[in-house]
Amino acid sequence: MIYLDNAATTKPDTECLKAAEKYLNEEFYNPSALYRDGYRISKELSSARENIVSLLASPQHFDLIFTSCGTEADNQAIFCGGRRGNIVTTFGEHSAVFSAVNELRQRGTEVRFAALNSDGSVNEENLLKLIDDKTSLVSVIHVNNETGAVNDVAKLAASVKSKNKFTLFHSDGVQAFGKIPFRLTRDIDLYSVSAHKIGGMKGCGALIKRKNLILKPYIYGGGQESGLRSGTENVFGIKLFEYASIKRYNNISDNYEKVLFNRNLLIKNLNKSLFTKISGANSSPYILSVYAEGVRGETILHEADDRGLIIGTGSACSSNEKKRYSRVILACGLSENAAGGVLRLSLSPETEQSDVLAAAEMLNEIVGNRKNMMA
Amino acid sequence: MIYLDNAATTKPDTECLKAAEKYLNEEFYNPSALYRDGYRISKELSSARENIVSLLASPQHFDLIFTSCGTEADNQAIFCGGRRGNIVTTFGEHSAVFSAVNELRQRGTEVRFAALNSDGSVNEENLLKLIDDKTSLVSVIHVNNETGAVNDVAKLAASVKSKNKFTLFHSDGVQAFGKIPFRLTRDIDLYSVSAHKIGGMKGCGALIKRKNLILKPYIYGGGQESGLRSGTENVFGIKLFEYASIKRYNNISDNYEKVLFNRNLLIKNLNKSLFTKISGANSSPYILSVYAEGVRGETILHEADDRGLIIGTGSACSSNEKKRYSRVILACGLSENAAGGVLRLSLSPETEQSDVLAAAEMLNEIVGNRKNMMA
Repeated sequence: MIYLDNAATTKPDTECLKAAEKYLNEEFYNPSALYRDGYRISKELSSARENIVSLLASPQHFDLIFTSCGTEADNQAIFCGGRRGNIVTTFGEHSAVFSAVNELRQRGTEVRFAALNSDGSVNEENLLKLIDDKTSLVSVIHVNNETGAVNDVAKLAASVKSKNKFTLFHSDGVQAFGKIPFRLTRDIDLYSVSAHKIGGMKGCGALIKRKNLILKPYIYGGGQESGLRSGTENVFGIKLFEYASIKRYNNISDNYEKVLFNRNLLIKNLNKSLFTKISGANSSPYILSVYAEGVRGETILHEADDRGLIIGTGSACSSNEKKRYSRVILACGLSENAAGGVLRLSLSPETEQSDVLAAAEMLNEIVGNRKNMMA
Repeated sequence: MIYLDNAATTKPDTECLKAAEKYLNEEFYNPSALYRDGYRISKELSSARENIVSLLASPQHFDLIFTSCGTEADNQAIFCGGRRGNIVTTFGEHSAVFSAVNELRQRGTEVRFAALNSDGSVNEENLLKLIDDKTSLVSVIHVNNETGAVNDVAKLAASVKSKNKFTLFHSDGVQAFGKIPFRLTRDIDLYSVSAHKIGGMKGCGALIKRKNLILKPYIYGGGQESGLRSGTENVFGIKLFEYASIKRYNNISDNYEKVLFNRNLLIKNLNKSLFTKISGANSSPYILSVYAEGVRGETILHEADDRGLIIGTGSACSSNEKKRYSRVILACGLSENAAGGVLRLSLSPETEQSDVLAAAEMLNEIVGNRKNMMA
């Protein structure tokens, strides 16, 4: 079986699982407890927090709130950061941001959406035009989860701050963390990450925040995470996240080169008369978005599945006609016909040359046969 | 080591862990994915949902939203159920409810608190008096997490509905689920449960809801959990929760008898001249709350810890003077002096006779020595 849906989720890293499993079996104590075993766990959480922050920022300037997933981290950023004035975001956001801002819009907050370029990156000029003195929050995805487009969030954050220094800048970094070498700048106030996209488990994420930023909690209760996220901490998930993050960052450049090489091999071997590339030249090598005009992505996905190749599509499967096409792909300027044929092929450091070569061959055959049948 | 802090968290069940671990290693696919492996996981989640609901209600009348913890389930119930008019709750709530309603109060919602009886149960008459035609939500904890007091939530819910049929009734069932034989009645709209209190993992909980109830999501995004809780599902945590719940319910009466026997043995062997019982006669056998007047609970906890006995206290450890005493214990009518000496001894079905006998002996000795020193 060839697995090219790593942007949806990754197989938890076996080595890291082994290292973390004692937090399920032996070190199961409640980190809020006052006895030694509990206190030891709370220290383990502190080191996890600091170790993860260190991978992309100075722990002197940033700290970290563990959440249950990237979506929750995004929700806390949006709902707690963007209550007043207007919110500026893009048409390229993950649903975790897109649905949250739409909910705020329903409640009466003005939300402004910046247009996308054809590769799914945000049109920077358009975004900056939308910011005014009432903008409380700007949220821009770091790496687009459908096309892999990389937004220069450090530069954007600086531009945003120079237009309005009171505006908070948030970025959803779920598809960038552990993959794209990058450091947080102090213009970035909030940054969301997730564990299961890099070898951790589902059910664990974090919101990294600028230390001086005063943020409200989104989940209230016992006061865990310095009062910013209550609920007994997912200790096992957090330690696994820590180990997986460190492992990814220890190899981030080598991984990047390997994935880039394989992504390029995949592009080279996909039949250009059948597939059109959506991902741009500067996109993350971890995600390749293409479309086969006139053939439904789902059809290709299911046939590939039968042959042992697992891929994603760009479109949500829904009986609702309006939802048949990905809003992000349409916002890139593609026709509905093209958007219906989108495939997302997403790699991991474990993906091998033989995997992408076999995948390309299979996809060429599947779409080639379909086109012949239709002709 | 003797572990009597099972109300804080339990050791995950070894057998259930073994059965669930494949959802970390092999069955790691994203349940939202369209290919077979993904769809299979989504079916596994559906069966987990139905199996857990079945343990305490008919799946015909109730369904279930998986959340990241009991606290999140409580927050969704409070923030999404209690937006209008006034909210009625008790002084005996877990922080997950207490902090959430206080946040709503900060935002302008009127919150009314019902008084407690001396064992920590709610004064029913007082509670019902607080309900009027503007009450949107009533939230009453099922088993008090500090004293073990059991509130008759089915009866209370019926009384609430007869006063105002439009009022939603929520109960935090975290310390009841898997422990106290109980079925949900249709007067109960929302019921929160947690995995790590019954042998599951931290980072997994659920909000059980009446099927016809229209509830808003609290976390927005990709539309998981029928749109009511977005974010990629914690598949491993959910399957472990399912297995642990089923195991607990398969043995719920035997466990209850065993724990009751051991709790009574513990009471019998604690020196009555040193310890005063707070838990009432009808409290959950899983929690025994006592106090040693004049001796700080933390002091006892640390000395017990040194000797290999792990227990909880009733008071939060905090440098903040106001927080030195548990608000719940004070609401039971205890003096600050008594409240400062509260111990929470919480059992599990794995607790043995020898554990409680040794614990009683140790606690008698620790407090006896202290009292002698002070005398």
